[in-house]
Amino acid sequence: MKSLILGGARSGKSRHAEQLAAASGRDVVYLATAEAADAEMTARIAHHRAQRPAGWALVEEPLALARVLGQQAAAERCLLVDCLTLWLSNLLAVEPSRMQQELDALYETLPGLPGDVLLVSNEVGWGIVPDNALARRFRDEAGRLHQRLAGLCDHVTLVAAGLPLALK
Amino acid sequence: MKSLILGGARSGKSRHAEQLAAASGRDVVYLATAEAADAEMTARIAHHRAQRPAGWALVEEPLALARVLGQQAAAERCLLVDCLTLWLSNLLAVEPSRMQQELDALYETLPGLPGDVLLVSNEVGWGIVPDNALARRFRDEAGRLHQRLAGLCDHVTLVAAGLPLALK
Amino acid sequence: MKSLILGGARSGKSRHAEQLAAASGRDVVYLATAEAADAEMTARIAHHRAQRPAGWALVEEPLALARVLGQQAAAERCLLVDCLTLWLSNLLAVEPSRMQQELDALYETLPGLPGDVLLVSNEVGWGIVPDNALARRFRDEAGRLHQRLAGLCDHVTLVAAGLPLALK
Repeated sequence: MKSLILGGARSGKSRHAEQLAAASGRDVVYLATAEAADAEMTARIAHHRAQRPAGWALVEEPLALARVLGQQAAAERCLLVDCLTLWLSNLLAVEPSRMQQELDALYETLPGLPGDVLLVSNEVGWGIVPDNALARRFRDEAGRLHQRLAGLCDHVTLVAAGLPLALK
Repeated sequence: MKSLILGGARSGKSRHAEQLAAASGRDVVYLATAEAADAEMTARIAHHRAQRPAGWALVEEPLALARVLGQQAAAERCLLVDCLTLWLSNLLAVEPSRMQQELDALYETLPGLPGDVLLVSNEVGWGIVPDNALARRFRDEAGRLHQRLAGLCDHVTLVAAGLPLALK
Repeated sequence: MKSLILGGARSGKSRHAEQLAAASGRDVVYLATAEAADAEMTARIAHHRAQRPAGWALVEEPLALARVLGQQAAAERCLLVDCLTLWLSNLLAVEPSRMQQELDALYETLPGLPGDVLLVSNEVGWGIVPDNALARRFRDEAGRLHQRLAGLCDHVTLVAAGLPLALK
């Protein structure tokens, strides 16, 4: 089963995904895309880590998501990717051709993966058009990514105030 | 039937409206409000145009939306307006009295139009309060427009990740 | 009955909460958290005030929300707090320890209040990550507040284009 879990900042989307992972009855592998580039990000990573069960395996991968998903996926496992927004942000910082390769690899790999895959991502396009061209590009790419993954996933959920709303 | 289709940037709202138009069985008139003011906007317009069926008529009107809707509407037609946010943005650049005239004209004209009318617009008020006074005014006007049109439309849909959520 | 009413800017969330208050059949006490710090805010407050029934009592309190809720709540009353976002914003401007005290006081007080309590708040985390550290902190605090209150309320509603969507 593949699920896409969307929501705004601090919407409770990660916690919702973690509850789904815990309830899956499978061995959970937490796939973190964050890189601790500064103090604020280090604190956010530590905050998320402190809330996860100790028994979960942790794999950190900022860029090659499809490859790591392919390596880690197994029938008895639940992979929890948190989050796609940071992965996309990491990809925007490398060369453009690499970004498209990684996106295409994800779209090709995802449908065939065994076990459960939970993908967490931020809604970022519900505000005023940003002044910044990179921010506009980022929200366009994030929107396209969500539409594409929504088509590939069995379930899509929007989380607000910690409460899930089923979109698919 | 009148429908309002709302969603964030790259949420798939235009594609959803286009699917509704194609499924209507009526002759589709695509009413574009965008003006190609710069290279980025020209690219966005070309991107949208490439995704539309060749048989659809195209009418471009940045300001006088109610007048053009009145001229184009017919029992056998489906008018697809994409998008109200750009129309509102165009109106904010002309004198204020003109803007209110155009808004009032839309509210008066819409209920009596024959055929189908699909109105696409961006949700822009779900982020942090913008620093910029014009941006704050824009999101206030957009919010009021959506509330008013939601009252006049038969259906209101919120689109996220390409998936429709019925609000009315 | 406790209700949390969420929505973007000009989504119609205040109007929706006011309709719930009017339909409650109870004596309505409107608890305003806004302070008229500048001309724009003064205009917004006047705009909201003009839309409320004359028979409603008005209490203004920018910071000590839990205390005022405790004083005002009664079995025959409906308290309408508009809005939590401004209250949080006011608290961010005082010392941090006061903010946490006020948040904790609200979480302790709310469940035991008699009568109806309607809490209105803005969704602010669905846009691009703000450049500004204070804005990031604000949207993190707002998101946490909404999650916590959603757990304590009987009903949670998301409003878009004036239309309510039940989350709980």
